[in-house]
Amino acid sequence: MGRTDRGAAPEPTVHEADPVSRPEPRGLSRRGLLGLAGAGVAGLGLGVGGDRVAQAAVAAASPSAAVYPFYGAHQAGIVTPAQDRLHFAAFDLAADATRDDLVALLRDWTAASASLAAGAAIGQFGAASGSYDAPPEDTGEAQGLPASGLTLTFGFDPALFETPAGVDRFGLAARRPPLLVDLPHFPGDLLEEGRGGGDLCIQACADDPQVAVHAIRNLSRIAFGRASLRWSQLGFGRTSSTSTSQATPRNLFGFKDGTANIKAEEPAVVDEQVWVPAADGPAWLAGGSYLVARRIRMTIEAWDRTILREQEAVFGRTKGEGAPLSGGTEFTEPDFSLAGRGDTPLIDAAAHVRLAHPAQNGGARMLRRGYNFVDGNDALGRLDAGLFFISFQRSPEQFSRVQLSLARHDALNEYTRHVGSALFAVPPGARRGSHIGAALFA
Amino acid sequence: MGRTDRGAAPEPTVHEADPVSRPEPRGLSRRGLLGLAGAGVAGLGLGVGGDRVAQAAVAAASPSAAVYPFYGAHQAGIVTPAQDRLHFAAFDLAADATRDDLVALLRDWTAASASLAAGAAIGQFGAASGSYDAPPEDTGEAQGLPASGLTLTFGFDPALFETPAGVDRFGLAARRPPLLVDLPHFPGDLLEEGRGGGDLCIQACADDPQVAVHAIRNLSRIAFGRASLRWSQLGFGRTSSTSTSQATPRNLFGFKDGTANIKAEEPAVVDEQVWVPAADGPAWLAGGSYLVARRIRMTIEAWDRTILREQEAVFGRTKGEGAPLSGGTEFTEPDFSLAGRGDTPLIDAAAHVRLAHPAQNGGARMLRRGYNFVDGNDALGRLDAGLFFISFQRSPEQFSRVQLSLARHDALNEYTRHVGSALFAVPPGARRGSHIGAALFA
Repeated sequence: MGRTDRGAAPEPTVHEADPVSRPEPRGLSRRGLLGLAGAGVAGLGLGVGGDRVAQAAVAAASPSAAVYPFYGAHQAGIVTPAQDRLHFAAFDLAADATRDDLVALLRDWTAASASLAAGAAIGQFGAASGSYDAPPEDTGEAQGLPASGLTLTFGFDPALFETPAGVDRFGLAARRPPLLVDLPHFPGDLLEEGRGGGDLCIQACADDPQVAVHAIRNLSRIAFGRASLRWSQLGFGRTSSTSTSQATPRNLFGFKDGTANIKAEEPAVVDEQVWVPAADGPAWLAGGSYLVARRIRMTIEAWDRTILREQEAVFGRTKGEGAPLSGGTEFTEPDFSLAGRGDTPLIDAAAHVRLAHPAQNGGARMLRRGYNFVDGNDALGRLDAGLFFISFQRSPEQFSRVQLSLARHDALNEYTRHVGSALFAVPPGARRGSHIGAALFA
Repeated sequence: MGRTDRGAAPEPTVHEADPVSRPEPRGLSRRGLLGLAGAGVAGLGLGVGGDRVAQAAVAAASPSAAVYPFYGAHQAGIVTPAQDRLHFAAFDLAADATRDDLVALLRDWTAASASLAAGAAIGQFGAASGSYDAPPEDTGEAQGLPASGLTLTFGFDPALFETPAGVDRFGLAARRPPLLVDLPHFPGDLLEEGRGGGDLCIQACADDPQVAVHAIRNLSRIAFGRASLRWSQLGFGRTSSTSTSQATPRNLFGFKDGTANIKAEEPAVVDEQVWVPAADGPAWLAGGSYLVARRIRMTIEAWDRTILREQEAVFGRTKGEGAPLSGGTEFTEPDFSLAGRGDTPLIDAAAHVRLAHPAQNGGARMLRRGYNFVDGNDALGRLDAGLFFISFQRSPEQFSRVQLSLARHDALNEYTRHVGSALFAVPPGARRGSHIGAALFA
């Protein structure tokens, strides 16, 4: 048996983003695009213990060959089954950027994103392009890796339409969706400088972090001179399922998260709660959504010293299976009226599952797509860890309504601190030959 | 088809660490240990488009079922095929910690590590243990995940034996290996506060970052009151192969890295270059190694503006395949004497591959096991990215010799900055019933 090669791993699975889009041609591996790469590694023998070691490597590499088309009626990365890893980035446009620069940037980002999502490199390098005297168009660290289910999702901050000082830099102020205003200050918010704002955002999700990082790096590079990275966040583990085919993952409190999340297999709910309908306006946003991002620091050391009974009371679910404390299994609907001994409700009045439940929030739901993060540790030796919350919804009001209720009463607040916040309007998907946000400039 | 479940995924592959160790009993999934978890999720139907989505989820989840035994003649995580993800942590012992505290901590860490490496939780929680009125022993975020090839590798800093002020806190000064002294200051070093030092280190490697993070978090928690986290580093992508069964990965310069690395399949080389032989002394370190860690920040924005010809000249290899510029394929031995036009050597005098080559360093080699990192971005919008270099060697002198040569002449220095540095003595593996470092205290 020869060397394993991530690039030569399983056949890619190509998915249609939605019924309206046309399927992408089968994704080429980046390796396939490079004349220089990939030759001469087959057929090398294994040494002592080789067979057993090889088995491990096959299990370990296990690349994701999923390919999601970039073009479509909606942007990918929303109802797409949540990938395992995240690199999220927000950008400021250059002070001297013009409306034409902005359109050109979106056009360039669109073309590059379509290549990246297909598992291809940006451009070519080396002998194939004859460009030894130019910097390689692609930075190269994802050569040989499959598409890994990469999606790139673009959003527009309120500041793109009008700066906080009221400056209409790009002639877009009149086209700002009335709902696209900075989120309100919620009780307990402790927002930190450099963890919000920007003009544009890109959410890169993939099953291989190197693929997500490669995408953000190369899109940043394409923006050079026109827009620069303002803040960014890596997430190592998804905390929500967006498909019934996925097992519910766990957050860093050790609890299953997102059991009641909106799933791609509920198209009526997705239409009702996630996509902006034409009737809501503005027209350029029809088929788009609103993205809320919140960096939620967890004080996990305090949490870890809390007794199990209290942890479960705080969530209103069991820690093992994730079943509501009113009984049943993970997917049993919670019964908030059920009382135990002394007429105390089995699910506490301040329990997270109660306060976040649509029944307590006028039916408001969100499609959650957050990620666990650990960004080193602070000077006291505490892990800088938590949840990078991401949700998509038809209106920011869905988030605000639930968050206001949580911020006031949620028992979980004792163990969390919201330190970053951002809101973006997510335009609909781009059609082939066009670009992200085209209708905004039409 | 029902829900996929990482915990119920492929049968674990159990590996023997080395010929001396006994194989671990087949690793149980954490889910298996928990009475509460895992019931009731099978048999749920899929909605619209379910089949296609399910295929993606299977490809995406692709958990690594590899299990490496914790006990053995050598510690795991050195010649183990390099896993995909890293969480590295250094700890300071508490000011009032005694020698007995230190031994007890190593004993506790050993027991917990053996469980974690087997894919099991630490202790139990919930109904199974009847401990609703105690904090759960395990924090829970890895419940349901397989072992994911987790290895935990422990090391001792020079300060454990004697503080820089000369204090022998634990009666170990006389047992300090003469070679275990802080690394010299190398030309160009720009070491930052909080990126080195500590008394002990733990290298956690796994194919799932959530499993590596879970291990460091729980080991930190076990140390509460006895030792605290001083610094830590997450790495998202391995930059070296340590087995001929693995494809050579790429660093964030976009080049293949570690082509000429020491491989597990070369036992004679491993014995010669990696393990401390009894003859070298001290006796307690026989079968151990020395671990060097260096945080190397890359100025990738400058690199990305460099022409391909220059990039390849800096490395001395092609960017596509990774072949030496003297010709051949990736695994062809470089010919440093071969000259091209005008008698200029094909591999530059300052090329990284030349200066790092054993032939230029008295035969010195290292087993490299580094990881790519991205830790957000700085205020100028530059990614805080680079290589967290890790190497294992029989003597720190192997590293110092090569690094001195590189620090003086390497063309790559224009694009890198060494900002963190640490050296640890890595004791041999623990035998079942004993603990890591037992011989040091015998």
